[in-house]
Amino acid sequence: MAAPSLEFWFEFASTYSYVAAMRIGALASKANVAVQWRPFLLGPIFKAQGWDTSPFNLYPAKGRYMWRDLERLCTGLGLPFRQPELFPQPSLLAARVALVGLAEGWGEEFCRAVFRAEFGEAGRIDDIATIVRLLTPFGVAPDNMLAQARSEPIKAQLRDETQTAQQLGIFGAPSFIAADGELFWGNDRLEHALAWAARTN
Amino acid sequence: MAAPSLEFWFEFASTYSYVAAMRIGALASKANVAVQWRPFLLGPIFKAQGWDTSPFNLYPAKGRYMWRDLERLCTGLGLPFRQPELFPQPSLLAARVALVGLAEGWGEEFCRAVFRAEFGEAGRIDDIATIVRLLTPFGVAPDNMLAQARSEPIKAQLRDETQTAQQLGIFGAPSFIAADGELFWGNDRLEHALAWAARTN
Repeated sequence: MAAPSLEFWFEFASTYSYVAAMRIGALASKANVAVQWRPFLLGPIFKAQGWDTSPFNLYPAKGRYMWRDLERLCTGLGLPFRQPELFPQPSLLAARVALVGLAEGWGEEFCRAVFRAEFGEAGRIDDIATIVRLLTPFGVAPDNMLAQARSEPIKAQLRDETQTAQQLGIFGAPSFIAADGELFWGNDRLEHALAWAARTN
Repeated sequence: MAAPSLEFWFEFASTYSYVAAMRIGALASKANVAVQWRPFLLGPIFKAQGWDTSPFNLYPAKGRYMWRDLERLCTGLGLPFRQPELFPQPSLLAARVALVGLAEGWGEEFCRAVFRAEFGEAGRIDDIATIVRLLTPFGVAPDNMLAQARSEPIKAQLRDETQTAQQLGIFGAPSFIAADGELFWGNDRLEHALAWAARTN
């Protein structure tokens, strides 16, 4: 019997994906659930709903609340938090590099590093220099890596993943999908999703 | 020193307000926090954001998810759940009656009964017959009560409450506001809000 598994769908521009990405490793390990990290782009999904930016920008009261809520959550979890000047940040490059990394075994650590740089240090993840710096610990050649991240197969893979997300009913990030198709939305549902995955295996 | 307190802002048409309304009594009692129940109308706040109905209707994927999520939450909590045919339901009458009841001491129990009728039994809370039936346990004369609920002072009070909610930064329901002004949004933040209220007294 395979170990229980859970898909973790996230978007690098998403604040609550940051919190979920920093929490999921320890919680999944404790629940004995194998997690598949699935980066995707929310932009096309928001666009299909008629939004050209994050709802946190479209609805200022909701946006103000979100930043305060994120700060409180990070404080409670001991996570670094610094609000970036630009939100949401273009996440295309980071997502493509993450796809390469996830296939090569250093993807999860890279994803956490991207989120930490963005929401823990207010860095720019659409800046190539940031991505190159974050790649340092993994001993990969930055130029090769960037070329690979921009190759047709990786571009197509990210487009496909985003389309798959939409087809699975995903409308926001982070989302979690159990092996039986059950969907959970939001960092607040991470524990429920893991419990569901562990139970339904 | 006064007991720690927390304002509970809710809307009778709101599904997650149902769950919060059924949970808040026991949790607040355990946390030794006094709760003020504050019914208001989300409609005018949504309208100011350009919405003419619930976002769960405007965004079908989000709506489908919400009903499934609500069903799961209710199952986990042992709360009755039956999806009403009409959503969102006009909550004006229920909110006005609740304001009368909250001033007279039977409001909280009435609020829970309204939510149970709507989301536990798929009833129509905009139906006067439903409201009259729900008033039975409180020994109030329905005709007097309805006249009072439609009196100018109560109408004005509900308008004022809704305006106050908006001024406080409330953009959805349920919301919780601590004595120091700290805002928490959503049934998922009820425990956080109570802990905050208990701490900051």
